[in-house]
Amino acid sequence: MAEESVVGSTDFHVKRPREEEEENGVSAVTMEVEGSNKEQQPDCISAVIPGWFSEISPMWPGEAHSLKVEKILFQGNSEYQKVMVFQSSTYGKVLVLDGVIQLTERDECAYQEMIVHLPLCSISNPKKVLVIGGGDGGVLREVSRHSSVEQIDICEIDKMVVDVSKQFFPAVAVGYEDPRVTLHIGDGVAFLKAVPEGTYDAVIVDSSDPIGPAQELFEKPFFESVARALRPGGVVCTQAESIWLHMHIIEDIVKNCRQIFKGSVNYAWTTVPTYPSGVIGFMLCSTEGSPVDFKHPVNPIDANDSHSKSKGPLKFYNSEIHTAAFCLPSFAKKVIDPKAK
Amino acid sequence: MAEESVVGSTDFHVKRPREEEEENGVSAVTMEVEGSNKEQQPDCISAVIPGWFSEISPMWPGEAHSLKVEKILFQGNSEYQKVMVFQSSTYGKVLVLDGVIQLTERDECAYQEMIVHLPLCSISNPKKVLVIGGGDGGVLREVSRHSSVEQIDICEIDKMVVDVSKQFFPAVAVGYEDPRVTLHIGDGVAFLKAVPEGTYDAVIVDSSDPIGPAQELFEKPFFESVARALRPGGVVCTQAESIWLHMHIIEDIVKNCRQIFKGSVNYAWTTVPTYPSGVIGFMLCSTEGSPVDFKHPVNPIDANDSHSKSKGPLKFYNSEIHTAAFCLPSFAKKVIDPKAK
Repeated sequence: MAEESVVGSTDFHVKRPREEEEENGVSAVTMEVEGSNKEQQPDCISAVIPGWFSEISPMWPGEAHSLKVEKILFQGNSEYQKVMVFQSSTYGKVLVLDGVIQLTERDECAYQEMIVHLPLCSISNPKKVLVIGGGDGGVLREVSRHSSVEQIDICEIDKMVVDVSKQFFPAVAVGYEDPRVTLHIGDGVAFLKAVPEGTYDAVIVDSSDPIGPAQELFEKPFFESVARALRPGGVVCTQAESIWLHMHIIEDIVKNCRQIFKGSVNYAWTTVPTYPSGVIGFMLCSTEGSPVDFKHPVNPIDANDSHSKSKGPLKFYNSEIHTAAFCLPSFAKKVIDPKAK
Repeated sequence: MAEESVVGSTDFHVKRPREEEEENGVSAVTMEVEGSNKEQQPDCISAVIPGWFSEISPMWPGEAHSLKVEKILFQGNSEYQKVMVFQSSTYGKVLVLDGVIQLTERDECAYQEMIVHLPLCSISNPKKVLVIGGGDGGVLREVSRHSSVEQIDICEIDKMVVDVSKQFFPAVAVGYEDPRVTLHIGDGVAFLKAVPEGTYDAVIVDSSDPIGPAQELFEKPFFESVARALRPGGVVCTQAESIWLHMHIIEDIVKNCRQIFKGSVNYAWTTVPTYPSGVIGFMLCSTEGSPVDFKHPVNPIDANDSHSKSKGPLKFYNSEIHTAAFCLPSFAKKVIDPKAK
């Protein structure tokens, strides 16, 4: 999988989106920064909108979201993926993996707060939490708002994501400063297999899309490992794509989860403007044990004043939006929850 | 305001987005269809992503959503705006006014169903409904699902929008086939002033953005006319932009509405992937009279089997998503509803 770095490559040429899709299988990172030297462009980067970053992928064919680039701050090839950071003109700094936007400073609050507080506010006194992926640290920042938590393990496969986040996204990577956090660089699938059964109260899977290094995190054996690592009545929350774009993927995930998680299985969703179609979903499941009613949080955090100054107040999450996140449009409900009237 | 048609113009040249913004004030419609003759491109249309339509506007600076174009089906300049229809590769046919996407066949259900059923399901037995704007007919289609309704007036300023919708979007324009509908081509502001006081149970304002012909529909005198045209305890629902992009506009609208509507004043929102930031909001207000609790629909339609075959079933709206639409992220709640805890 390792690729040599193309920073400084001189064989830059303009590609059309279709060429990029066919060559890379994933995405066309397409950018030409005004006034910059072409010599500084990697050959994976070409002009779709000159001076803009465009996100094109077979995961969302026929559409692209573009952000105006002020400056490219970092680009490198890790062992697993292409990593890029740029300063956008209106969304703050942006982290891009394999051509796909992972977070922007302007809207990361929605994703990070929802993927964490939906599971952790649904159980009383979570103590041990495992994060798979989430190398940028934003999920850690949110987990650490919960004062009941004693141990936060994170297993991220790509150290470059951690390092880049600490360098460019201090308000996200602040999560690493919590003394309860232990960072494991490695494969989340292997990590989970080595975890003693019933260890965690909650597992949060903050993965990229199921093309690339995160593919296994959408498959059945992975969910089985998660279930094994959870205590009875423990909860998992995994990134689960967009109801507008990926109902076929979601249908499969739901089917797998219903077989594996014998507590409850639910789908929730939220708005993230810089994700394709503007929304992202989450699977929320619990293992057999004391029942978890995800739709009615028992451990509210918005009434909690214990947030440290370094993390700032919650921007997005509150108990009302927690419950609302489980209400699905009819077209999605029909597939995800066919027995509901 | 009238402009001569530029279809067939031969002075096409490629412009950069910034040039477009500065020249037009509104948007850069930027398109070059593969294999087409440059002679067929109007000069307002240039190549941003070749073969793609890109939506660029000072209303959402620094970002653009693009759709791959299969074929341009219509382009013309009406007395009020540029009107375009194209076949996209993955969102079906798309209606564009002044460079801004108004609807796509793939996601129009979310907008049309929510802007209609949020107000009409919040009151018992709506009988007289006025639609301002909404020339495509999608709002009419949804209003006509309500069997209690006896009279549906629509006032659309631009006949070209009506004609184009009837030609290219039959599943949307089907709303015009209902015998309860009367179409008035003209200025909604003037129409409302001529309406006898207390005429309507509900007014639905399906406007474009507050730049261009719809500007007055976001101003205080317009809301006063709406309030006058409503019966006591009547309701209005108006398109009210994105909480991610336009909190300053929304704050003004809310302030105006609180002064004018002495019943209740609420903000709701929904997902529409092809609108900027992926969401769109609605102001829902009632006049003094019997109180309206918008958050708890009293007139459910999802349990109603009376939908005609021509309209098809509801795709998006249901009672749960009705209530959920009023739950706001903390950053928006703080501005819109500062007294709430």
